[in-house]
Amino acid sequence: MSYEAIAEEINKNQGKFIARLREAVAIPSVSAEPERRQDVFEMINWTEKLMTKLGVKCQQFENGQETLPDGSSIKLPPVLYGFLGEDPKKKTLLVYGHLDVQPAHKDDGWDTEPFELVEKDGKLFGRGSTDDKGPVLGWLNAIEVMQGLGVEVPINIKFVFEGMEESGSVGLEDILLKHKDPILVGVDFVCISDNYWLGKSKPCITYGLRGCCCYSVEISGPKQDLHSGSFGGTICEPMNDLCWLLGQLVDARGTILIPGINELVAELTEKERRLYESIDFNLGEYRNDIGVEMLTSDCPKEILMRRWRFPTLSVHGVEGAFHGPGSKTVIPCKVIGKFSLRIVPNMDPSDVDKFVVSHLNELWKKRGSPNKINVVARDSNRSWVADFTDDHYKAGIRAIRRVFGVEPDFTREGGSIPIALTFEEMTGKSVMLLPMGAGDDMAHSQNEKINVVNYIGGTKTLASYLLECGTL
Amino acid sequence: MSYEAIAEEINKNQGKFIARLREAVAIPSVSAEPERRQDVFEMINWTEKLMTKLGVKCQQFENGQETLPDGSSIKLPPVLYGFLGEDPKKKTLLVYGHLDVQPAHKDDGWDTEPFELVEKDGKLFGRGSTDDKGPVLGWLNAIEVMQGLGVEVPINIKFVFEGMEESGSVGLEDILLKHKDPILVGVDFVCISDNYWLGKSKPCITYGLRGCCCYSVEISGPKQDLHSGSFGGTICEPMNDLCWLLGQLVDARGTILIPGINELVAELTEKERRLYESIDFNLGEYRNDIGVEMLTSDCPKEILMRRWRFPTLSVHGVEGAFHGPGSKTVIPCKVIGKFSLRIVPNMDPSDVDKFVVSHLNELWKKRGSPNKINVVARDSNRSWVADFTDDHYKAGIRAIRRVFGVEPDFTREGGSIPIALTFEEMTGKSVMLLPMGAGDDMAHSQNEKINVVNYIGGTKTLASYLLECGTL
Repeated sequence: MSYEAIAEEINKNQGKFIARLREAVAIPSVSAEPERRQDVFEMINWTEKLMTKLGVKCQQFENGQETLPDGSSIKLPPVLYGFLGEDPKKKTLLVYGHLDVQPAHKDDGWDTEPFELVEKDGKLFGRGSTDDKGPVLGWLNAIEVMQGLGVEVPINIKFVFEGMEESGSVGLEDILLKHKDPILVGVDFVCISDNYWLGKSKPCITYGLRGCCCYSVEISGPKQDLHSGSFGGTICEPMNDLCWLLGQLVDARGTILIPGINELVAELTEKERRLYESIDFNLGEYRNDIGVEMLTSDCPKEILMRRWRFPTLSVHGVEGAFHGPGSKTVIPCKVIGKFSLRIVPNMDPSDVDKFVVSHLNELWKKRGSPNKINVVARDSNRSWVADFTDDHYKAGIRAIRRVFGVEPDFTREGGSIPIALTFEEMTGKSVMLLPMGAGDDMAHSQNEKINVVNYIGGTKTLASYLLECGTL
Repeated sequence: MSYEAIAEEINKNQGKFIARLREAVAIPSVSAEPERRQDVFEMINWTEKLMTKLGVKCQQFENGQETLPDGSSIKLPPVLYGFLGEDPKKKTLLVYGHLDVQPAHKDDGWDTEPFELVEKDGKLFGRGSTDDKGPVLGWLNAIEVMQGLGVEVPINIKFVFEGMEESGSVGLEDILLKHKDPILVGVDFVCISDNYWLGKSKPCITYGLRGCCCYSVEISGPKQDLHSGSFGGTICEPMNDLCWLLGQLVDARGTILIPGINELVAELTEKERRLYESIDFNLGEYRNDIGVEMLTSDCPKEILMRRWRFPTLSVHGVEGAFHGPGSKTVIPCKVIGKFSLRIVPNMDPSDVDKFVVSHLNELWKKRGSPNKINVVARDSNRSWVADFTDDHYKAGIRAIRRVFGVEPDFTREGGSIPIALTFEEMTGKSVMLLPMGAGDDMAHSQNEKINVVNYIGGTKTLASYLLECGTL
């Protein structure tokens, strides 16, 4: 039975697959909202039922409790594990996906009800449509079609679907460690479909992710907020100090001004440079989409490298200072600046921490303020880059070429999916990101959508990829 | 009948006067919170009732409508006007006060319920106790005692009590203009009890106020907030620009770095310098009260001058950026920095505006960012300094000397009470500030209080002042 038959059958089932996605989107499995926690459990049960129908042997691994800000405690959703096939002669693929979604409310600015899948102009609008319910269903749709046509799935597949990805994957790593057997034992390669094409029309394979180091710098002075009229002029104001510090971290073009940071960045190799040559990236479109007249560079390749393989620093905000509309003439007593660096190979978070803290302390000495400073390195996760030339990636190329008739772009993501690195480290095997959605899908934002052609084409890609994995 | 009899009677009525203040504090007349607007009306009616009992002829002058940020409209509280005595042979005093208060919620960090007056260690805690319900009641208590003792009030008194002072005195100036007759006609001097002693033990008379110029500087870039991972590195980030700008307005010691500003400040005269010589100001106590180890100067006189007769600049906060606890890795698309300058003679707000805008534009040119800048000069009010040697001020000195047996300090306030200047300009007469509360009363802050000795002693001071005005 050829791939073409599978593709045709997928086309025929388009209506059914969209209806299936509609059912999934209708379960508002928002992990960040405790009052919707039950829906996350429901989404996991719904998926388990579907997998069981396909012959996947499922098991839910209990997660612990989550302590809410009010001190109360709430159950974490389990991790849904399943396996299809145990043939020792076959290779084993680990598929990861997540069943929870970002919060969404119609009055955030959605044009439609976020938890009702609405089809319009070939687009399927709804929270979770592209992140990550569409891709998760893509795997199951592909398997269902293969089984229906009597095509043997040529590999064993293990599934790990979690319900807390949008809330920091709480508990997942512990469960992977605790249940290394059966989850990770015997795995030969890992595939994750939870990111996006670079643009809107050309598929890609993603081989790298930036990491992230978050910092807070707290400046504290008087013991309480003070009236700027009554006290202004007599004390050294924490907010004035903080602005001075935050203003010296990065220049107008985004160059990081912290000594030592830029020297940590891995050299661009010739092999890597060549990946950028054929990439389909329209700078004008990118500029228009985000609504700016000028980017930090006019060169498309340079812009991509700045997103993917160079570090950046963003100041996110200030805690403790006035943030409402209008005026409030108060001297805040304690202000906390928040900024983060997106890091890349070979930046180790501990080196980055060292340089950031030391730069701020140097500046602070220069400032000569009597206020107190406290620099805290908060969460961090490392960057990840795969060997994009291995056989697993070659299988990915063939899978895409067969579906779309083009060579995929090789991309990285500027953001972080920490689990990719976790799987690589825990299995020691090749991890590949095989995105389904388009670059304008607006995951996490209002009016999240997946294009019908991406959902259906992506299902074909995953089927094609399963076939290719059988040849490895 | 001597002043001593009045003072003794005030002492005897301490319990009654505290109960009266308790009633007033229990009305949560927060002008800034639309849902409490009705309480402002109630507070005005409550006060009118009390005044009417004392024979004050009252009238409420309708104010207009206020448009709320959501576009809806709400009634402004009226201005309560009243007069006691119309004897053409007597001088006429205008008394101003306000009946509204700052917002307060127990969980802001109050030790007690803010709208329940709680007496502890000789202190009366409660929102509005010192700002400005205590002083307003002080006038009425004094008159009540004089009437009870059969002491003729030797002057005519006009009262102007408003309900929007904590929200910019919206509508007050219009009402004063519209009802110049009867409010301002025939007024010989103006007295306002709405500020504080310099320290905790020595009374003062206040002859000057700083003005205030508020600014916002808006930097806008992309059309929506962006994920710092996916987009960081490709755009020039508004928040990075804003921090750079805000960091260059003032140095660590509070010196304003905006060219032209410091040159506008009036020279210190010998007469003015002498006022500082006898002032009772304990720098160590001031430092302890606000909880800092170091001030911008070690010289008490210098610190006072920095509060009163030199300008300052405070950065208050940023609108549009992340301000919660924890981390949020977003690039805000539009951020608005808020800062203000406290101004002094001879700084005209229009000159200050010019220098501020021009400095920011100069810096912006240097920055070379493609983002858009919009500097807005918001509300401003001018500084005010009275002739502290006139007969009215001499009457004030005698009034205080009689109650406390000391010469009052002559102080200014670093903050603004724009109405002082308005009254001076509209009447052309001497305006004096005669504070009741102590310097540590924490108006506008958590745990606002007035000391029992200040409330009772202040009532005596106002009675003594009324008697002195009769000699002018």
